[in-house]
Amino acid sequence: MAKKKVAKKTGQSSGTKTTKKTTKKTAGEPVANARQHAAKTRTKRATTKKTAKKAASRPAERSGRVIDESKMVYYYGERGAEGDGSMRELLGGKGANLAEMTSIGLPVPPGVTITTATCDRYVRGGMRLPHGLMNEVHRQLAAVQKETGKVFGDKDNPMLVSVRSGAAISMPGMMDTVLNLGLNDESVEGLAAQTGSVRFAHDAYRRLINMFGDVVMGVAHHHFEQAFDRIKAKYRATVDTDVPEEGMVELSQTYQEVYRKRVGDEFPQNPFKQLELAIEAVFKSWNSDRAQAYRRLNGIQGLTGTAVNIQSMVYGNMGEDSGTGVAFTRNPSTGENKFYGEFLVNAQGEDVVAGIRTPRPVAEMQGWNAKVFKQLLTIKTKLEKHYKDMQDIEFTIERGKLYMLQTRNGKRTGAAAVRVACDMAKEKLISEDDALLRVPAGDLIQLLLPSFDSEARTLANVVCTGLPASPGAAVGKPAFDAEEAVERTRNGERVILVRSETSPEDVEGMHSAIGILTSTGGMTSHAAVVARGWGKPCVVGAGELEIDASKGQFKVGGKLYTRKDTFSLDGGTGEVMDGSVATSHPSVTGDFAKVMRWADKKRTLAVRANADTPEDARRAREFGAQGIGLCRTEHMFFEGERIMAMRQMILAETEEKRRAALEKLLPHQRDDFIAIFEAMKGLPVTVRLLDPPLHEFMPHDEKELKSIATALNLNEDNVRRRVAQLHELNPMLGHRGCRLAISYPEILEMQVRAIAEATIECLRRKVRAMPEIMIPLVAARKELEMLRELAQETIHAVRREEDYPGRLDIKIGTMIEIPRAALTAGEIAEVADFFSFGTNDLTQMTFGFSRDDVNDFLPAYIAREVLEVDPFQSLDVGGVGRLVEIGATEGRAAKEDLKVGVCGEHGGDPASVKFFHRIGLDYVSCSPFRVPIARLAAAQAALSAE
Amino acid sequence: MAKKKVAKKTGQSSGTKTTKKTTKKTAGEPVANARQHAAKTRTKRATTKKTAKKAASRPAERSGRVIDESKMVYYYGERGAEGDGSMRELLGGKGANLAEMTSIGLPVPPGVTITTATCDRYVRGGMRLPHGLMNEVHRQLAAVQKETGKVFGDKDNPMLVSVRSGAAISMPGMMDTVLNLGLNDESVEGLAAQTGSVRFAHDAYRRLINMFGDVVMGVAHHHFEQAFDRIKAKYRATVDTDVPEEGMVELSQTYQEVYRKRVGDEFPQNPFKQLELAIEAVFKSWNSDRAQAYRRLNGIQGLTGTAVNIQSMVYGNMGEDSGTGVAFTRNPSTGENKFYGEFLVNAQGEDVVAGIRTPRPVAEMQGWNAKVFKQLLTIKTKLEKHYKDMQDIEFTIERGKLYMLQTRNGKRTGAAAVRVACDMAKEKLISEDDALLRVPAGDLIQLLLPSFDSEARTLANVVCTGLPASPGAAVGKPAFDAEEAVERTRNGERVILVRSETSPEDVEGMHSAIGILTSTGGMTSHAAVVARGWGKPCVVGAGELEIDASKGQFKVGGKLYTRKDTFSLDGGTGEVMDGSVATSHPSVTGDFAKVMRWADKKRTLAVRANADTPEDARRAREFGAQGIGLCRTEHMFFEGERIMAMRQMILAETEEKRRAALEKLLPHQRDDFIAIFEAMKGLPVTVRLLDPPLHEFMPHDEKELKSIATALNLNEDNVRRRVAQLHELNPMLGHRGCRLAISYPEILEMQVRAIAEATIECLRRKVRAMPEIMIPLVAARKELEMLRELAQETIHAVRREEDYPGRLDIKIGTMIEIPRAALTAGEIAEVADFFSFGTNDLTQMTFGFSRDDVNDFLPAYIAREVLEVDPFQSLDVGGVGRLVEIGATEGRAAKEDLKVGVCGEHGGDPASVKFFHRIGLDYVSCSPFRVPIARLAAAQAALSAE
Repeated sequence: MAKKKVAKKTGQSSGTKTTKKTTKKTAGEPVANARQHAAKTRTKRATTKKTAKKAASRPAERSGRVIDESKMVYYYGERGAEGDGSMRELLGGKGANLAEMTSIGLPVPPGVTITTATCDRYVRGGMRLPHGLMNEVHRQLAAVQKETGKVFGDKDNPMLVSVRSGAAISMPGMMDTVLNLGLNDESVEGLAAQTGSVRFAHDAYRRLINMFGDVVMGVAHHHFEQAFDRIKAKYRATVDTDVPEEGMVELSQTYQEVYRKRVGDEFPQNPFKQLELAIEAVFKSWNSDRAQAYRRLNGIQGLTGTAVNIQSMVYGNMGEDSGTGVAFTRNPSTGENKFYGEFLVNAQGEDVVAGIRTPRPVAEMQGWNAKVFKQLLTIKTKLEKHYKDMQDIEFTIERGKLYMLQTRNGKRTGAAAVRVACDMAKEKLISEDDALLRVPAGDLIQLLLPSFDSEARTLANVVCTGLPASPGAAVGKPAFDAEEAVERTRNGERVILVRSETSPEDVEGMHSAIGILTSTGGMTSHAAVVARGWGKPCVVGAGELEIDASKGQFKVGGKLYTRKDTFSLDGGTGEVMDGSVATSHPSVTGDFAKVMRWADKKRTLAVRANADTPEDARRAREFGAQGIGLCRTEHMFFEGERIMAMRQMILAETEEKRRAALEKLLPHQRDDFIAIFEAMKGLPVTVRLLDPPLHEFMPHDEKELKSIATALNLNEDNVRRRVAQLHELNPMLGHRGCRLAISYPEILEMQVRAIAEATIECLRRKVRAMPEIMIPLVAARKELEMLRELAQETIHAVRREEDYPGRLDIKIGTMIEIPRAALTAGEIAEVADFFSFGTNDLTQMTFGFSRDDVNDFLPAYIAREVLEVDPFQSLDVGGVGRLVEIGATEGRAAKEDLKVGVCGEHGGDPASVKFFHRIGLDYVSCSPFRVPIARLAAAQAALSAE
Repeated sequence: MAKKKVAKKTGQSSGTKTTKKTTKKTAGEPVANARQHAAKTRTKRATTKKTAKKAASRPAERSGRVIDESKMVYYYGERGAEGDGSMRELLGGKGANLAEMTSIGLPVPPGVTITTATCDRYVRGGMRLPHGLMNEVHRQLAAVQKETGKVFGDKDNPMLVSVRSGAAISMPGMMDTVLNLGLNDESVEGLAAQTGSVRFAHDAYRRLINMFGDVVMGVAHHHFEQAFDRIKAKYRATVDTDVPEEGMVELSQTYQEVYRKRVGDEFPQNPFKQLELAIEAVFKSWNSDRAQAYRRLNGIQGLTGTAVNIQSMVYGNMGEDSGTGVAFTRNPSTGENKFYGEFLVNAQGEDVVAGIRTPRPVAEMQGWNAKVFKQLLTIKTKLEKHYKDMQDIEFTIERGKLYMLQTRNGKRTGAAAVRVACDMAKEKLISEDDALLRVPAGDLIQLLLPSFDSEARTLANVVCTGLPASPGAAVGKPAFDAEEAVERTRNGERVILVRSETSPEDVEGMHSAIGILTSTGGMTSHAAVVARGWGKPCVVGAGELEIDASKGQFKVGGKLYTRKDTFSLDGGTGEVMDGSVATSHPSVTGDFAKVMRWADKKRTLAVRANADTPEDARRAREFGAQGIGLCRTEHMFFEGERIMAMRQMILAETEEKRRAALEKLLPHQRDDFIAIFEAMKGLPVTVRLLDPPLHEFMPHDEKELKSIATALNLNEDNVRRRVAQLHELNPMLGHRGCRLAISYPEILEMQVRAIAEATIECLRRKVRAMPEIMIPLVAARKELEMLRELAQETIHAVRREEDYPGRLDIKIGTMIEIPRAALTAGEIAEVADFFSFGTNDLTQMTFGFSRDDVNDFLPAYIAREVLEVDPFQSLDVGGVGRLVEIGATEGRAAKEDLKVGVCGEHGGDPASVKFFHRIGLDYVSCSPFRVPIARLAAAQAALSAE
């Protein structure tokens, strides 16, 4: 795929659909690799969307110049450019860029651009080219001819041009490129004579006929392909390049026959006619069904039409003094300030694509053509000075003369982004603020997780691919259940938990394992969510896995893996690889730390972490977390003997028996809290009280059920009945959260008691514990009011019992995670010290999406653009975000000093962080690994809002 | 219970806690029965709440009189009343009522009321009685003494008084009544001499000591009780009345000892001291913890304090010329304009309660004391003229003189409400509009369902009581599964479906059965919701039932019921009765029709019905529905051979196979629609496309699963796998509604095709079909946009195929039932012709309550007032209602002519209808049986808003 891209980019000199068929992957192609690597750093869709929106809302042209509205054609070339980069609306994106490049003195093949306003006149004028347009085109082209030393339409020395559409926003449905326009039966001979290559000339000609027929006249491409196949058969050629010269000559005639038959008319031999028809085709494509639909669906309004770019052709395959290449002004992988790229001598992009020849590093140009190389280095500096960012360029050398075809901001890895930003700030190219804005916050994740060594990766054998649920690299042996994972880890093994799916019962095992692999579930399944929270590599939904846990094995790609077989997991790509693939740990360089310092100076939003254990808390602190925004307590009930006490509590038939079981849990909880408070001393820790429905703590299989009955000395039938009774049709909307605490206040009492006792213990040890109690799933003020009262009473009781003389300032607040809570936030705020938006559940209920079940349709929703983004990944601003805003605003209106934060996974998503900043929240809380991302995103949000 | 009420009401002359213990149910007590019957028509809590809110927000006093702020005590008696009924804020509810009764000339025992402002002065003054208060009390009481001919504190001719609290809003925590105040060791002898009954006097005295000790001084009641028990033991008495005269004398001394021991002081022998202490106790009770909590929790603000009512005592047990009674000015059961009630000669309410004597109908008073009877009849007329409503009165005759103790609007049955309203309008007592407002809309349900004959009921043997899920009476034999119910019904049997719970598979059987009884589930379980929709009697959650479906029997209350045993079900009370209890069908009288006509003139909100079958549609039309607002189509897939085609569709692995299966369903669907469109000709029918998740159509047990595989010639394992794959953790938030249509567009195509074909067929038969297509569960605009397009294409295709020349105006809209849909209604409206709020699901998601699981905690939530009302019964205005308002407002802002309705069960709830009217919806849709209720509620909403 990467190859194809090169072909397209250097496409002025090549690029047809026929050649695409011959594309195949060849390892070690540096041009391709650099691009491929860089491309991974952002998803294409996201970038396109943003550009589109930005462009559509661009308020005014940059230059203050007065625009002559009667002017239809803009020239760019040696005499300079009539337009510039700010004139996207009038010249389209491509036209404006070509003008800009020209205006800063780059050697761009000269050409002209017909304005978008002309397109509008064409449409309004009843689909007729405006009077005088073609005259103006020819007048402007005259200058181009002068510069190229060729003449458009001349039979001996023809100037060939490309014709392209180009609106302010690129969109599907617009006309494709037509290359080599200007050739006919006579001038093809002139071109042959001029270039000394009949083959070259006729190849160019047949491509023109094909493209013109296809793009301008609507002749299906396959008709030409079939004709080519017949020629190849005739000459016994297997690939295009095997066809001899006479075959190519014959082909340009055969193609004209195809054209005649399908169009019902001759291929226009008059180059001026060719040009006129091509221009008209571009204008018509503006209102094609697809283009109209795209504009409607994307809410693109206010554009007048498309521009038409007519540019003189240049060729990199005119001999050993010609060539083509792509390059980055700095290393897109590391960010090092060193010209980086590849070139091919006497080649068109097509040759690269065909994989016949291997490109050479740009450094080697020095030896090939020192002048051109020096010119490129000068251009590199000029470009960075002008665009103030690393550039990704395409160039062609025609007979020793360098032409720049394209320049744009280069894509880069997270590490490169950090380094380029810091270096450019140091070089005074950009300010510190600009540097901060240059690093895509989400890309920092690459700096925070171990990753596979890129060399090793290319050699690895991918046995299957699942969903990339939680990035990172893991190498280990399979464990098939949680207990096994815990035990083998304890024995020093590195295991990857392999299961069809996971449940809260598996949490301990998941935590022990170095990676998680499931055959079912999606990006928001239990395994995925828990793993992401921990920053643990995880691949889910790898459907090809055939797991046989009872035999302790899984099969995939024809291979059997037992407990003794090592495999590797890439949580960032979803790939499962055979054997042990080498990993590398990108170091957190000084530049990274510098960026973080700059970010902390700029941001106003605090960043906390979601952490449930002392280890997570410590890691969060290392990453700069300013507290814990969500400390879930349910995991604390699963470890070791605790689960049995928990089950005893659930199975108890009286409050007294429940209290007895809870009594056993109390010391464990207290110790948990002491350890976490110590790790976070001096920083707030928001403890969420028990949230999941009780059945999550009960076993599912008959065998375990029996053993519980035996262990607790209970009647088996009673246990079975109670488990059945706990079953819920929609547990997500069931008896959980604060509803449990209202039904069984003794559970809340035990947890609050553990928090209060731990706090006093810490304070006595001079450890500044700052707990905040968070009551989950509140839907109505009264719930919080009742439970807050109970919690306060419990705290007072503990303080009395412990005879603690000092203040015990434990804030009590709630999670806003039910739509009704957001809608009645004004009432709820009156009895809350803080709000923390649980945007995960809020998203579930606002959309009516169960994250456990959504994989049946959500992937298709995203693919078909029913939804723009996965609302569990990035906050849905219009719906869920509106509730968050209502909740925050009305909560604060009721209580001015209400602290308001977010503890859903969205707290670590840059786009969501921007929104949270905009509506003025106090903090976001996210998984420890995402804390630096949130810090940077918060700074960027603050800067963007300035 | 009903007895106790009478005792309390006539409480001025009796009523203690001791007597409550002796209360037992005695059949055929007319006083009690009338009250009991009437009481059923409204829930007590709802009434209380409303009154409270009204009073709290009462803007100003009615009378324009200038209030003398220094005046602390208001008199009422023979010289008239210084206050009136509008002065609730100053005199409290009781004080204002006593003043009002007095002022219209009723013979009320004279008394005085200390103002609420005085209470405020007491509190602000540091809990000290304001200077001059007691003087003013005595000065005002002087007039009362004159009228009673007795003297407060006199030892020979003592005037006794009652002391009561009475705020503008009644609330718990306020001081209870103290009766007989003014007695002491001396005056008790005077009273004995005066009344000629030592027993009477000492009984009054010991009650005073008890009440004063308990209510004023806080001596626990049981201390007195124990003393009484000792006296009873001494005199070998089993009930209070067995204690001889000397025992009563002894008791008043024993009680004083108890008082002395517990209070640490003598019982105050000075009547003035008694009065002062009692007044202070009333004032103190205003700020009791309970009263403060109640005011805080109910948001009652702006009240200044409680008033104190001091009223002279009268006694109905002073001989054969004395008596007591309660009556209604009209028959509260039928509404007939005939004085209705009961009385007892020489009795206090206590005697009634003890069940020793049977009250006599008021008509018999004619023979006992014609003068008093005539006086009562005059009062009846006067009361109705004054209060303009049927009154519920309490009276006492002391030695031939009639005293009115209480009057208030009488509770009544739905039938009585309709008749009284119509009659009073005819009598020109009230206007048509007032008449409309007089009928509680919800009570009309009683006129619309068959009910058990009240005589027969009292004799019935209630074997168990479940939850009253859907009102109505059913008498039949048990059927234990859906198929059986269908078959036996077909054979002419009347069966009641008895199951542990029901699921959509059972729908056909539920529809066949005349009633439904389940042992599990709550008011919003599947059985309850479906049954209510149909107006079919249903009792759910009858936990005592032991159902053994395999044996075809159930056990309850020690009795075994087989398929041959008849039993009766009261869906309005939840009672299951043995054998066949006679039923009566209240006729829809002319008055009822008249009220409906009046309502239709006034209302602006249209009323449609939720109906899925032609029968339901016809019934809805009879009840005045103006269209079908919700025609669910899923039920249509369950009947007969359809379910097999549906399953074939679900199990199909390719679109082609799915289409083949759908092809079989098409003619059925088309015929269904033709029949419904015919029934509703000329009126709109909103058809909701398939909504439930597909697994609801699959069987759950292994056996049926096998038989499906066989029938459809499919691999058993594949069937099992597909069923397992369809399983969802939270089906409510899963793959259903429009999500299905996006995954399987062919389902939507089939349904739309059936609708379009049925429409054309109807139009050709000159039947004006007006279908509207409703797409369920939309969360994002794009969903609706895509499906709307597909539906429109399908309609066009059908029109072309059918070569139908006319217009085919089929509106396409959506259900707004997901919070996000309401929050983004502006976007969605652009691609919708109408919105219909599905408030059932919207409530589920806004609260995060699964109606299938909510029974674990919702009943406790209501009982403990965490929520004021069940949000599935009456719309939660603050949360869900806010979303409805946002959706309606923003939807209309985007599309002015957007039709907006509601099709949740709330459409038939009067309080919710009022809200829907207020926010300007176009229509509500409810189950056919509730259509008249909605019509009346809509009219009342319109009138209230005027």
